[in-house]
Amino acid sequence: MQANKNTAKLLLHCPDKPGIISAVTDFITINKGNIVYLDQYVDHIENIFFMRIEWELSDFLIPREKIEDYFDTLYAQKYEMNFRLYFSDVKPRMAIFVSKMSHCLFDMLARYANGEWNVEIPLIISNHPNLQHVADKFGIPFYLFPITKETKAEQEAKEMELLAKHKVNFIVLARYMQVISENMINSYPNRIINIHHSFLPAFVGAKPYHAAFERGVKIIGATSHYVTTELDAGPILEQDVVRITHKDTVEDLVNKGKDLEKIVLSRAVQKHIERKVLAYKNKTVIFS
Amino acid sequence: MQANKNTAKLLLHCPDKPGIISAVTDFITINKGNIVYLDQYVDHIENIFFMRIEWELSDFLIPREKIEDYFDTLYAQKYEMNFRLYFSDVKPRMAIFVSKMSHCLFDMLARYANGEWNVEIPLIISNHPNLQHVADKFGIPFYLFPITKETKAEQEAKEMELLAKHKVNFIVLARYMQVISENMINSYPNRIINIHHSFLPAFVGAKPYHAAFERGVKIIGATSHYVTTELDAGPILEQDVVRITHKDTVEDLVNKGKDLEKIVLSRAVQKHIERKVLAYKNKTVIFS
Amino acid sequence: MQANKNTAKLLLHCPDKPGIISAVTDFITINKGNIVYLDQYVDHIENIFFMRIEWELSDFLIPREKIEDYFDTLYAQKYEMNFRLYFSDVKPRMAIFVSKMSHCLFDMLARYANGEWNVEIPLIISNHPNLQHVADKFGIPFYLFPITKETKAEQEAKEMELLAKHKVNFIVLARYMQVISENMINSYPNRIINIHHSFLPAFVGAKPYHAAFERGVKIIGATSHYVTTELDAGPILEQDVVRITHKDTVEDLVNKGKDLEKIVLSRAVQKHIERKVLAYKNKTVIFS
Amino acid sequence: MQANKNTAKLLLHCPDKPGIISAVTDFITINKGNIVYLDQYVDHIENIFFMRIEWELSDFLIPREKIEDYFDTLYAQKYEMNFRLYFSDVKPRMAIFVSKMSHCLFDMLARYANGEWNVEIPLIISNHPNLQHVADKFGIPFYLFPITKETKAEQEAKEMELLAKHKVNFIVLARYMQVISENMINSYPNRIINIHHSFLPAFVGAKPYHAAFERGVKIIGATSHYVTTELDAGPILEQDVVRITHKDTVEDLVNKGKDLEKIVLSRAVQKHIERKVLAYKNKTVIFS
Repeated sequence: MQANKNTAKLLLHCPDKPGIISAVTDFITINKGNIVYLDQYVDHIENIFFMRIEWELSDFLIPREKIEDYFDTLYAQKYEMNFRLYFSDVKPRMAIFVSKMSHCLFDMLARYANGEWNVEIPLIISNHPNLQHVADKFGIPFYLFPITKETKAEQEAKEMELLAKHKVNFIVLARYMQVISENMINSYPNRIINIHHSFLPAFVGAKPYHAAFERGVKIIGATSHYVTTELDAGPILEQDVVRITHKDTVEDLVNKGKDLEKIVLSRAVQKHIERKVLAYKNKTVIFS
Repeated sequence: MQANKNTAKLLLHCPDKPGIISAVTDFITINKGNIVYLDQYVDHIENIFFMRIEWELSDFLIPREKIEDYFDTLYAQKYEMNFRLYFSDVKPRMAIFVSKMSHCLFDMLARYANGEWNVEIPLIISNHPNLQHVADKFGIPFYLFPITKETKAEQEAKEMELLAKHKVNFIVLARYMQVISENMINSYPNRIINIHHSFLPAFVGAKPYHAAFERGVKIIGATSHYVTTELDAGPILEQDVVRITHKDTVEDLVNKGKDLEKIVLSRAVQKHIERKVLAYKNKTVIFS
Repeated sequence: MQANKNTAKLLLHCPDKPGIISAVTDFITINKGNIVYLDQYVDHIENIFFMRIEWELSDFLIPREKIEDYFDTLYAQKYEMNFRLYFSDVKPRMAIFVSKMSHCLFDMLARYANGEWNVEIPLIISNHPNLQHVADKFGIPFYLFPITKETKAEQEAKEMELLAKHKVNFIVLARYMQVISENMINSYPNRIINIHHSFLPAFVGAKPYHAAFERGVKIIGATSHYVTTELDAGPILEQDVVRITHKDTVEDLVNKGKDLEKIVLSRAVQKHIERKVLAYKNKTVIFS
Repeated sequence: MQANKNTAKLLLHCPDKPGIISAVTDFITINKGNIVYLDQYVDHIENIFFMRIEWELSDFLIPREKIEDYFDTLYAQKYEMNFRLYFSDVKPRMAIFVSKMSHCLFDMLARYANGEWNVEIPLIISNHPNLQHVADKFGIPFYLFPITKETKAEQEAKEMELLAKHKVNFIVLARYMQVISENMINSYPNRIINIHHSFLPAFVGAKPYHAAFERGVKIIGATSHYVTTELDAGPILEQDVVRITHKDTVEDLVNKGKDLEKIVLSRAVQKHIERKVLAYKNKTVIFS
């Protein structure tokens, strides 16, 4: 029975104290849950304990709809925990925002078509019509919202309605060339993932490859981060780099950068989907 | 006869035009020079041609002391070339400036002791006494110049006298924790090599590992560059990076960074010693 | 006029002698060709000179259909050159062979759909029906040739007919899980590009991720090479690696490896398309 | 009081069962130990649980000389644990074996001189006199044991006496160009660390850089592993790689490889010193 393999995933953080791991593992073990994953980390500067634990639900004594309540009552309050509970058979729903460049979109949709990601992608939103054909290839609804200064607030309101209607849990900005307004960002805290085409915090803002070329760096990078109201300054999920030389033109950087961007973004999205990211203040704990 | 293996190394740049490679290779070939290295590059934006060529001197018809003059008269003026000529049997003389951290110093002196670098190191200069013992281990004179705001100008003047006396050609700042003043920088244009413990232009200035930790980056780096009067902004010679995680403390970054710093600095110094660097405007051409 | 930008690309190798660069650049310059690319390399052990040169054809005095003949008569014979001439406006025609895994296929077709590669892909050939849907998404004819020991010779003969009919210049094995027979390999010398899912020469043959897991390596790799009659032993075009830990299962290796494989294969194919690869004996010169 | 910071480090593995983490953390917490590190891992294929835990001893209720006994009685037998206990104030004693190449030796001694490693290095052993001068620079006794086929057994016997006399806990082969005989290997199980100058399992045995050059690989590597009786086949501690090109000669590979070798070896030795390695069968668990 495939259902037997369903798991619960618990992510939590709280002030560090002795006995938390024991308490949480006891809770699961006593109730006949088989732990299949445990990773924890203590930030000794902030004195915060972080944990991710996953267990099989097949023989678990607590009905799944009551786990959250029980855990809250029995442990979370006592330890002042901030926690979230997920079930492996509930797929998060992800919207992709794009503009004109297709490489990140293709990379994610190829994984999706291949069943690699435990996610639903109910829609793609764009401010340009260029990538309609990509959405069509994969049979995913494509919504066009052209944006000007004047129409931005109005268009974003419509986008948010659409996202709500499609029960979207998180948003991926796949080289979406528009700054998201504060209102939308605040509606999806640590749930909007961006890819920035530089090794942040170097080259914040527009045209980072041009800036990298001008500076004469020997390595370029890409950074995936959660979007906050400060531009390119949110918690970083993943970064990677590639070596360049003086022979590389700006166009070469753009092309080498594309492969970086798509891989870095997809790794970040995958970690998010697997519930392996815990953002705390302006940093992330990435569980293994 | 070992002398047969002596080579001349010519580095040049000039406005790009047809026929430069032919002209230069003809000059060498006609005069019975055996070319053992040729690398060239055209910057199509600036329209500048860069070249490094090396040939064996054993049968070369032009006496070595006249090569520069002949080349200048016959070619350099015609093509508006900026060129430099070096001989493999003339070792450049390098001074090392240090403060308290030994890792870069040890790494360079180990290579020197092992005969890996075609260089002379007549002296080490420091603003702190801490690394005298390292200099002593390798038998290299160590000069102490403590520096305060008040004594800086005076001490640097003495340092420059000492450098002149030792016929120093270039300076390596091996985690030297003092900003070099403009006067000294201008005396050694593109001949002072620094190692900065970040992936520039991210985290310019003091305490980059602390800044990297605060920002929550997933990769840290090190950058070796020529020193110019603008802090950490000179032409970059070499960069490299290493992956970190949320588990790494500032101390971990410092420790992981040490290996990066020493390798990046040594690679940069080696390229400089081998005459494989051509700085142009604020960037470098690094020949292969 | 876009036609003005058309270029000729000449790749050659020959015994090293003085004067070859001069001769070749003179040939182009005298005939009013504007050189836009030159890279050369001397293998001092084999004493072979390798060169890639590219020039604009707009004002070139020799008609393009006669360049090969002239160059052969004037230079190639004198210097015992082995050379090939390509024109930028003649797109090479590439066939993709697949089996069941889609990641490499998707990656290449995404680049193709996006116009990143100067290539034609007239057909996809497979021994399994699984990836028909990918070919359909991109509108590329998909031909199914199931292969058993008994039918192999016969099916490959049909494949070769089809390749000839479509004027295919080179073949990419995108995780094609069949050994190509000698006859087909010899028909496409250094024109069949494979991706092997290990850091060759480690883990030749089947199931390299399982072997890597068993051996307990800390890094896995992927290798793209030209196919020769010896399994996984042909000239290597490109390799890359990714770090793993003891926590990674075989499935994790397979998943991490997918991203490696697709990027390594695509880089290799791109170099081949750009005519930047010169295979010599069992190695490759990759021009910058 | 600095003594307060002393810690105990417990490494263990046993068949995986529910409740082990609870049991171990309870043992420490109940006895007033402050846990400063915990990392664990389950090998679900072998069904083995691995753990490293570290706690401060200042208020620990069990006297340090009795911890091992208590833990064994109370937990280890019950859970069939294989465990080792270390104290942070007991420095392991390390012997270095060298032959003629100095780069790895210099790198380790620089760290040692700088106080970076919590280790004692009472002696250096060599089969060649070449590196006496390096040992002298750092004031470490250097013992010369020339080895021929005929004298090997006898010389190794003397070496082992010397190692015993100096209470050596583990041995580092820093480019020691002699195969260690079975007898010595069995006396130091998983306590002889070697650096092999290739990306194992590629290029086992002698002259790996020559083999890499012949094969035309695009990346070279280095591997640090525990020595077992099968050549270059023991549990791998650390690997790293560097990119090369067709332009690199064998000498270039040797030089680029040196930096790799010393960094890879030093990382491996550091992990070993920090008690972060647990070898199991032919693989290692490397704690974070």
